[in-house]
Amino acid sequence: MWAELLPVGRSSASGGYRRYAWTGADADCRAWFRQQAEARGLAYEVDRNGNQWAWLGDPAAGNAVVTGSHLDSVPDGGAFDGPLGVVSAFAALDELRGRGARLTRPLGIVNFGDEEGARFGLACVGSRLTAGALTVEQAHRLTDGDGVTLPQAMEAAGYDPEGIGPDPERLARIGAFVELHVEQGRALDLSGDRVGIASAIWPHGRWRFDFRGEANHAGTTRLADRRDPMPSYAETVLAARREAELAGAVATFGKIAVEPNGVNAIPSLVRGWLDSRAADQASLDTVVTAIEKAAREYAAAHGVDLTVERESFTPVVEFDHALRDELALILSSDTELRVPVLGTGAGHDAGILSGRVPTAMLFVRNPTGVSHSPAEHATEDDCVAGVSALADVLEGLART
Amino acid sequence: MWAELLPVGRSSASGGYRRYAWTGADADCRAWFRQQAEARGLAYEVDRNGNQWAWLGDPAAGNAVVTGSHLDSVPDGGAFDGPLGVVSAFAALDELRGRGARLTRPLGIVNFGDEEGARFGLACVGSRLTAGALTVEQAHRLTDGDGVTLPQAMEAAGYDPEGIGPDPERLARIGAFVELHVEQGRALDLSGDRVGIASAIWPHGRWRFDFRGEANHAGTTRLADRRDPMPSYAETVLAARREAELAGAVATFGKIAVEPNGVNAIPSLVRGWLDSRAADQASLDTVVTAIEKAAREYAAAHGVDLTVERESFTPVVEFDHALRDELALILSSDTELRVPVLGTGAGHDAGILSGRVPTAMLFVRNPTGVSHSPAEHATEDDCVAGVSALADVLEGLART
Repeated sequence: MWAELLPVGRSSASGGYRRYAWTGADADCRAWFRQQAEARGLAYEVDRNGNQWAWLGDPAAGNAVVTGSHLDSVPDGGAFDGPLGVVSAFAALDELRGRGARLTRPLGIVNFGDEEGARFGLACVGSRLTAGALTVEQAHRLTDGDGVTLPQAMEAAGYDPEGIGPDPERLARIGAFVELHVEQGRALDLSGDRVGIASAIWPHGRWRFDFRGEANHAGTTRLADRRDPMPSYAETVLAARREAELAGAVATFGKIAVEPNGVNAIPSLVRGWLDSRAADQASLDTVVTAIEKAAREYAAAHGVDLTVERESFTPVVEFDHALRDELALILSSDTELRVPVLGTGAGHDAGILSGRVPTAMLFVRNPTGVSHSPAEHATEDDCVAGVSALADVLEGLART
Repeated sequence: MWAELLPVGRSSASGGYRRYAWTGADADCRAWFRQQAEARGLAYEVDRNGNQWAWLGDPAAGNAVVTGSHLDSVPDGGAFDGPLGVVSAFAALDELRGRGARLTRPLGIVNFGDEEGARFGLACVGSRLTAGALTVEQAHRLTDGDGVTLPQAMEAAGYDPEGIGPDPERLARIGAFVELHVEQGRALDLSGDRVGIASAIWPHGRWRFDFRGEANHAGTTRLADRRDPMPSYAETVLAARREAELAGAVATFGKIAVEPNGVNAIPSLVRGWLDSRAADQASLDTVVTAIEKAAREYAAAHGVDLTVERESFTPVVEFDHALRDELALILSSDTELRVPVLGTGAGHDAGILSGRVPTAMLFVRNPTGVSHSPAEHATEDDCVAGVSALADVLEGLART
């Protein structure tokens, strides 16, 4: 099953995956999903937002247990982020059938469309539309780098874009959603555990720092006469690292734009984007406030103007405590498995759904912590442990 | 005269000049030069490399005194860098005629082509070709942003590119070259003087710093697990500022390229270009060595690989000491004018010619030091003082 999916959308140049929403690689992934569903005799359907579903039992009965993730990728992403959750869902179903498990609740497997947002710039479009967290008007305005709108892309891929929108009836049938995902950090590697349970998705924001100085000749302008924004930017990068360390948070300047960006020109503008996340809102506020303060002080001392604009913000997502405790209880029956509870700095479809449906996540160990890269990895043993834990959880939930 | 030149190649958007080699704006500047020459009854000619010359007296007599500069501009450059030297040359000739000065040496006025290198990326192409400091093969390989080669551009502008190359006979006729230029720093403003004499062009180099780390997820990768090249770059920017201050030099990171340059991605590569110049070679070596050392130490401590490559280097240009002293002596007769001797961090056609011909430069005060910008400025009084000083120099030299 895994072997059939591996070559789809893989770049021979980078070894990474380029599975973007509503492209040929995406269609191949979707064909694979349908084939897996039908091969297992599951009822297959596509919802109004293009998410794929496979059902054992009648979802109309309600209180369904659903698992799954996504199959699309970031540019040159790894094989595990997304697909591991879908493959593990089918594998867990196989294991439950092998065990002869008796399930009293409907069991669903889902592939949410366009989780990574690589094409249209917004993550979790499939789950957002379904949960009503993205309006139809907003979705119509999404455009890719070639000027193709989301509705045009859906139509070109053979899907009807007329019907997109909130799907409360579908969500009302779901009693619990559990997403399995490769960990995108090293917490499990450091604690020596194969599988973990998510506590929360850290609050997360992006801020744009515009440092404006004065363009001038790099050879003839005395240091004392310069209004060079680059050292102020540099000071801010180091402040971000320092403040994040102090708070146990993360803060990253990964994108920059410089004007005029000439070797012999003092820049007139250095624009840097800060991505910061922390375990809780107070810590995040502390980090960002301290970074901005350091930036303002340094800029003011060097005649540089600074504006800071928050471009996006997602508050903390606390997963359903009762469901989380239920997962911990179910998994505690395996005495060989210790299952720590851990937070994550990454967004997920589970985070979007958590406002509408009791939602939980399982993480599988990532020995390097590397993610969104061809080097992303999980060992086969850990993946098997993940499938087994997911099967236990589904069986435990579907019997209650 | 100045008023006719002012609107040529001026952008209505920025107020800056866009006079690039062999474009329409360049042709307009050249037509202006020819008209000025002919209106004064000077013998006009274009040399094999497209530089324009205007002669009073027969250059074949040898030991000519030549003055001039260039008319092209950097992107959105100011009105003074270049044109002030050409306009002042014609104005000084007018003043000499008004004085009834008797000149025993031929007097030439020159407009060197493509001094700024804005189109083909190499500065001083006209003077380099003439001096043999740029080979014909190298010149044929110069290409602009649209893929147009230098010979193609010359041909399109109506010039014969077949003849380009060294012109030693022409240089052999020149006994002294004096270029007047707006100062591109604030030394004269700080000393309170209208006009200065150049001592030397500082040695100048460009170095490319490639900081390579590991691309990773900005939300989920712990700080301790990161190999983020951005803080190492930032530390190096601050080291450059610090070391340049210590040495009385200049060091600038004005150009940067980041991969993948995504808001939520730790960069795999931060590439920064260092431009550094100092009064002498030893100071420049000290500054660059110290910057590189700081960069290597910080990068090594953070798991970042660093390669540093010198992309270009121009050694110090000491202007002819005898000619410099002669200028100082001539100008000392004006007891109201104090004329300091100062170095400069910028390259000039005079720097190229100085290896072949006794060469000197006069600088006119720039009250803000701003250059290569629409804000570049010199007061009318100072420009008049510059013309007067240039006339004194030409008269003094052409009588000897």
